[in-house]
Amino acid sequence: MMEDPLRVFHMVICIGMYDWSLCLKFFLHSGSFAGSIMSASKRLAYVLKQAYSMEIFGCFALTELSHGSNTKGLRTTAIFDPSTQEFVINTPDFEAAKFWVGNLGKHATHAVLYAQLYTPDGQCQGLHPFIVQIRDTKTLLPMPGVMVGDIGEKIGLNGLDNGFAMFHNVRIPKENILNIAGDVTAEGKYSSSIKEVKERFSAALGSLSSGRIMITGISTTNLKLALAIAIRFSAARRQFGPTEDEEIPVLEYQTQQWRLLPFLAAAYALDYFSKSLFGNFVEFFAGVLTKQRNQRQADLGREIHALSAASKSLASWTAQQAAQECREACGGHGYLAMNRLGEIRNDNDPNCTYEGDNNVLLQQTSNYLMSWMNCIKDKAPFESPLGTINFLQDYHHILGWRFTAISVEDCMDSSVPLAAYKWLVCYLLRESDLKMNKEKQAGQSDFEAKNNCQVYYCRSLALAFIEQTALQRFHDYSHDPSVPAALQPVLRHLSALYGLWSLSKHLAVLYQGGYASGEQPGKFIQDAILKLCYRLKDDAVALVDVFAPSDFILNSTIGKASGELYKNMWGEILQGNKALNRPSWWAEFCMNKPVVGRLRSRL
Amino acid sequence: MMEDPLRVFHMVICIGMYDWSLCLKFFLHSGSFAGSIMSASKRLAYVLKQAYSMEIFGCFALTELSHGSNTKGLRTTAIFDPSTQEFVINTPDFEAAKFWVGNLGKHATHAVLYAQLYTPDGQCQGLHPFIVQIRDTKTLLPMPGVMVGDIGEKIGLNGLDNGFAMFHNVRIPKENILNIAGDVTAEGKYSSSIKEVKERFSAALGSLSSGRIMITGISTTNLKLALAIAIRFSAARRQFGPTEDEEIPVLEYQTQQWRLLPFLAAAYALDYFSKSLFGNFVEFFAGVLTKQRNQRQADLGREIHALSAASKSLASWTAQQAAQECREACGGHGYLAMNRLGEIRNDNDPNCTYEGDNNVLLQQTSNYLMSWMNCIKDKAPFESPLGTINFLQDYHHILGWRFTAISVEDCMDSSVPLAAYKWLVCYLLRESDLKMNKEKQAGQSDFEAKNNCQVYYCRSLALAFIEQTALQRFHDYSHDPSVPAALQPVLRHLSALYGLWSLSKHLAVLYQGGYASGEQPGKFIQDAILKLCYRLKDDAVALVDVFAPSDFILNSTIGKASGELYKNMWGEILQGNKALNRPSWWAEFCMNKPVVGRLRSRL
Repeated sequence: MMEDPLRVFHMVICIGMYDWSLCLKFFLHSGSFAGSIMSASKRLAYVLKQAYSMEIFGCFALTELSHGSNTKGLRTTAIFDPSTQEFVINTPDFEAAKFWVGNLGKHATHAVLYAQLYTPDGQCQGLHPFIVQIRDTKTLLPMPGVMVGDIGEKIGLNGLDNGFAMFHNVRIPKENILNIAGDVTAEGKYSSSIKEVKERFSAALGSLSSGRIMITGISTTNLKLALAIAIRFSAARRQFGPTEDEEIPVLEYQTQQWRLLPFLAAAYALDYFSKSLFGNFVEFFAGVLTKQRNQRQADLGREIHALSAASKSLASWTAQQAAQECREACGGHGYLAMNRLGEIRNDNDPNCTYEGDNNVLLQQTSNYLMSWMNCIKDKAPFESPLGTINFLQDYHHILGWRFTAISVEDCMDSSVPLAAYKWLVCYLLRESDLKMNKEKQAGQSDFEAKNNCQVYYCRSLALAFIEQTALQRFHDYSHDPSVPAALQPVLRHLSALYGLWSLSKHLAVLYQGGYASGEQPGKFIQDAILKLCYRLKDDAVALVDVFAPSDFILNSTIGKASGELYKNMWGEILQGNKALNRPSWWAEFCMNKPVVGRLRSRL
Repeated sequence: MMEDPLRVFHMVICIGMYDWSLCLKFFLHSGSFAGSIMSASKRLAYVLKQAYSMEIFGCFALTELSHGSNTKGLRTTAIFDPSTQEFVINTPDFEAAKFWVGNLGKHATHAVLYAQLYTPDGQCQGLHPFIVQIRDTKTLLPMPGVMVGDIGEKIGLNGLDNGFAMFHNVRIPKENILNIAGDVTAEGKYSSSIKEVKERFSAALGSLSSGRIMITGISTTNLKLALAIAIRFSAARRQFGPTEDEEIPVLEYQTQQWRLLPFLAAAYALDYFSKSLFGNFVEFFAGVLTKQRNQRQADLGREIHALSAASKSLASWTAQQAAQECREACGGHGYLAMNRLGEIRNDNDPNCTYEGDNNVLLQQTSNYLMSWMNCIKDKAPFESPLGTINFLQDYHHILGWRFTAISVEDCMDSSVPLAAYKWLVCYLLRESDLKMNKEKQAGQSDFEAKNNCQVYYCRSLALAFIEQTALQRFHDYSHDPSVPAALQPVLRHLSALYGLWSLSKHLAVLYQGGYASGEQPGKFIQDAILKLCYRLKDDAVALVDVFAPSDFILNSTIGKASGELYKNMWGEILQGNKALNRPSWWAEFCMNKPVVGRLRSRL
């Protein structure tokens, strides 16, 4: 891990390609649970040792039944009792039951539990994490005072046991507070260093980013899995053709290319982006570990927070849309469970929700971008550690840019959408700022003003910014002279396609703001998208073979590398569970049919 | 049914709200199977009688493993043997196995089976339907020569047994041909009246429409179910607020309104549209039953075919997107199976695929629209029985229209998007026609030219046309003086919101084609959408209460009418299956843990 931190990333992805539930079970224990303990004081080293040897199994219990996004609303309490040197954990009512906690449903023996800490003077000191034993490690039965169970079936990820728990006067030793932000003395006095808190907050932001960057990678993996299945199917499935006798693969149809190949381009762009973002995080985390306290480290924390919040949203939505499109593009066969597109869609869904709902998270990114408006207005020089916002220095200049391509061929390089994106980000930034000022001048509170600036403004701004950033990185990579010459054409096509296709969703804004005018810009972009799809279609199977896992891991009958669609399906079905059996209820269906009225009372 | 044909429509919807699998099982038997037999000659009346008394249970076996959309590629054969006056049914290989057939997996005793009819002279006479017994009615075991089974788990609709079947020299009496399009004499001579065939084709088109109109209604029902759940949840769920102590319902947030309320408007518009379309179909079908052979009846068949193909696509996609948005808008709780949003999404999916893939079906509609280009160019007068294309008579005039609203308030009526839509349809029609001619002039075959005109042209045209048609009808309804005055404001808001929101997806084209220019049109439309959402939000719960079924049928914990979110969830979870139980594998997890290396060979 120290030698090459990307190995952690790859391990998550590799386990997840096989099964996301397994992947999450493992990382909730070893990452969220053990990781939290590791970042607290050394007096809990023995717990960490038990966790790593699997003597105990952990979970991370933050969210409650009635509160997820708004963690300030959490109501579980931990009251310090100096007479026994213990904390007493209580759940006031079922709305405050810990809820959704992964691993808690059936397995966890211990939890890192977040509760409002009360000192003996009755003062609430805010949310703190504690280690609480949930179940006996030998019998797996609940500890006294703990009511714990499984929240039930979900749309997907049913290999993960999400649980709930309520606590009634559960006592834990004083040592079990994870003294990250604060601690309590033996007398019950709360101690917390403000400076420490600020620093920890920066570290906490970074730590939140790690989850979101992993989700970016996880979502991109789902995108790749779905595409491997749908593109292999589309190359093998034939339907209709130019003559009565000849049928052509459905991938030869422009519509099918347009449905799938932009997502293929997105898979390459987001794959590169998620890895590069993980690299940025490693740099940041090295600073945390070496206790860097300079401005750059703090700025890096903010920038990574802004990037990860939006990249998680972009990747999870892209994967969601791709899974749906792939499902539909495979017709009826895409609806068979054995082909895995349903599982991919269902297992990808939480990526849009956990670690922050996408729409809520995008506000983090737009807040970050809006925070540069003062520098922009003052024309003061500024830059960020990763340089992702440096182009905003040319804000006033960029706002004067216009769409200048004069042919379709002109648009076939990602520099065209990239320039448009830079204008788009500046334009949406200006519009968001104007809208915010207008709302405030109209007498709205900060809370209301911000809420009323999301749709069409801040939300679009955050999305355009992250698409631009991902495109910039993939553009730079695909145009790097160190990339083998034989690979450059296809990589550049992918980069251009991703850029144009993403940009085309903002086309109305380009017109609205005057960047584009007349029929040509729109037509050029659309024609270039279709041309790029056509140029990429013969490479499409090779391009998914590059990233598809082995058939056993991909676990999709129509997605097998052999392309022998029908033979594979036929084998799978006939070897399936009870395909040819009579149903157990056959007699009720034939011989002992229910008679109309037989349930009528005979009294 | 004769008194009020809409009762059939309502019965399907009512059963389906409870469970779509049950609904499909019933209608595949009584509609597709029995209905096909009914439309053939009277000599099969005894089969019909058995079907209605449930002595036999039927399915409709058309699609094969390797062919769905392209029915001409079907390869099951029925060879007439004059020596025994029988047809011999054979499946050449597994790729031609009947596949996906609903009810066939476990239950069907009989099938209406489509096969290529061969006369003794070796001539193939094309696809014909036959009645074939699949299973013994007393034992439910397969008949000799039939290999039949279940195709396995699907993403949804698992209460329906989709099956496969292969036939090896299965003999059926000559009488079992459903002599709709043709028949065979005792000597083996094929007889078919061309005139009859044409008429039957028109009837068949209409019959296909009935399925697609039903799917329009089914999808709209899914849209309503999902919204009832998400809007009730959003009104009860509180998260964050203007002050530390006060949390507000998430429906108060502009973003949440914008995510959900346009779909609510769509539910009202599509509900009205699907019922009015069913009414049109009833008129057409009355003509079929009374053997109308005039031009109007034929024109009506074509128009309904064009409308139903696109309305099925529009409604199924709208429901799909709404189910996804509702799932996400309910956060983690939307991901719990008990809240039904996953089931709705999974069960709605096939609506995008069966009775024709949406993208393929849209071609039927654009073909119909393109067929009027000659009349338009010749400036010849024309009209259609339902009048949906009559506005194309003003094609040249409409292309000169421009966006003229000069304030947001100006845009708050559906007449604004309606005018824009009429321009949009004319513009896309012109562009599609130009593109088609360009492709042909470049030497493309008809097949290729048509394929290359779909994306951004014919496909957009068909969607814009059907949105315009749905909006026109809902606009007329909401502006009808006979609507109670108290209801008019809210209905007009819904109509305006549906129109503007749908139109906003075409905004780029409005700019591209010069209908709109400058910043204002886009801003007006966006501001009007947000304003309408705001005006509708306080009525939103009432608007879903109007169409939501009872709690028992809606079967969603967070969707219950009481709005007591947490109490309902808590009850459901604790009463759930084994929520508090230890897992059966607890000992392997605690006491008898696997030891590293214990599976290593001990040789």
